[in-house]
Amino acid sequence: MRIDILSVVPELIEPFLDHSIVKRARDKGLAEIVVHNLRDYTTSRHRKVDDYPFGGEAGMVMQIQPIDACISHLRSQREYDEVIFTTPDGETFDQPMANTLSLKNNIIILAGHYKGVDFRVREHLITKEISIGDYVLTGGELPAAVIADAVVRLIPGVIGDEQSALSDSFQDGLLAPPVYSRPAEYKGWKVPDILLSGHEAKIAEWRYEQALERTRRLRPDLLD
Amino acid sequence: MRIDILSVVPELIEPFLDHSIVKRARDKGLAEIVVHNLRDYTTSRHRKVDDYPFGGEAGMVMQIQPIDACISHLRSQREYDEVIFTTPDGETFDQPMANTLSLKNNIIILAGHYKGVDFRVREHLITKEISIGDYVLTGGELPAAVIADAVVRLIPGVIGDEQSALSDSFQDGLLAPPVYSRPAEYKGWKVPDILLSGHEAKIAEWRYEQALERTRRLRPDLLD
Repeated sequence: MRIDILSVVPELIEPFLDHSIVKRARDKGLAEIVVHNLRDYTTSRHRKVDDYPFGGEAGMVMQIQPIDACISHLRSQREYDEVIFTTPDGETFDQPMANTLSLKNNIIILAGHYKGVDFRVREHLITKEISIGDYVLTGGELPAAVIADAVVRLIPGVIGDEQSALSDSFQDGLLAPPVYSRPAEYKGWKVPDILLSGHEAKIAEWRYEQALERTRRLRPDLLD
Repeated sequence: MRIDILSVVPELIEPFLDHSIVKRARDKGLAEIVVHNLRDYTTSRHRKVDDYPFGGEAGMVMQIQPIDACISHLRSQREYDEVIFTTPDGETFDQPMANTLSLKNNIIILAGHYKGVDFRVREHLITKEISIGDYVLTGGELPAAVIADAVVRLIPGVIGDEQSALSDSFQDGLLAPPVYSRPAEYKGWKVPDILLSGHEAKIAEWRYEQALERTRRLRPDLLD
């Protein structure tokens, strides 16, 4: 799988990709993540990628030309399954969407910045708009990193222990049960006896019950 | 405002803080963000911060001792309004929550990693659990960065142009209207005439109608 991320501040996202699970996926040859600086695609003499909005609103707007040039360049090299734009009014990102995206071959993620991107980019160049949640961030770099992280870790072989991803929250429609580690008692706070019992079947049953109870109490919507 | 972020992989979050809006807030003296490496607080000889889960599940669990030591150390220096843990089964982060947090003086954010943290941390040390969305990430570092970014940019003076934050999506309960910048025509795709008209009142009316229409179509739940 290949993910191309387009940004005007690549230094916000590159260090994350160089240290995270994404690096492991790259090192194993399971995913290729390339960050593009949109300033490398502008025809402006001053490498400008933003300008004032028409109609006199506050803030700056990312211009269409460098974005179009970068996407066209990439599309000339290979086929892309999706050209994603991260925006708070996009479709809400969730685990099923992460699963779907992890099966794609090539995707582009455009990270917005400043006040927003010229709307013509969204009308004509973007195939999918994704929101990671109902809040406003300074830019789309963190959302792009979130999507890359959630998607890449699902590619088989990226996480060492397959079981670890399968028992995550949401993958079975339930929240994860509580986990505990040493010491068995800390400042008088004890680990549940059942987990120390060595009785595998009873432990599995306890975990399922805990997952169900937590989901019922905290996220009943997941059970609908 | 001060935000202390606790992590076992601080290199995942530090570069972001050094480049983003958070850096601007720090430089202006409007926010102090400190990242703590939990390995500096372990009593283990090998600086170990994780161990196997009781009951034989896959994955590793962050132990309670280093987390308790770090939080206790911080609490001995100042009062904290919240000790936040980022987890997919927490309360969903949204713009009102970002607004509330931006009014706090001191908060701690614990970024989980590996399979999870010892549940006793969540029972006894954490005051608020936050999820940035219904998806699983490799760690809590990105969610901690997301929360820091969303909160810090709301502190008065951090964003140069106050108006820019006020006209964001969600702040008035509506999605933001489309924005456009030069050129007025690109590959035959034109900017709406109204925005080039110079008629301020009509432009304001158009923007409100667009915001309302987009909200009705894309996020009718925001109008309930």
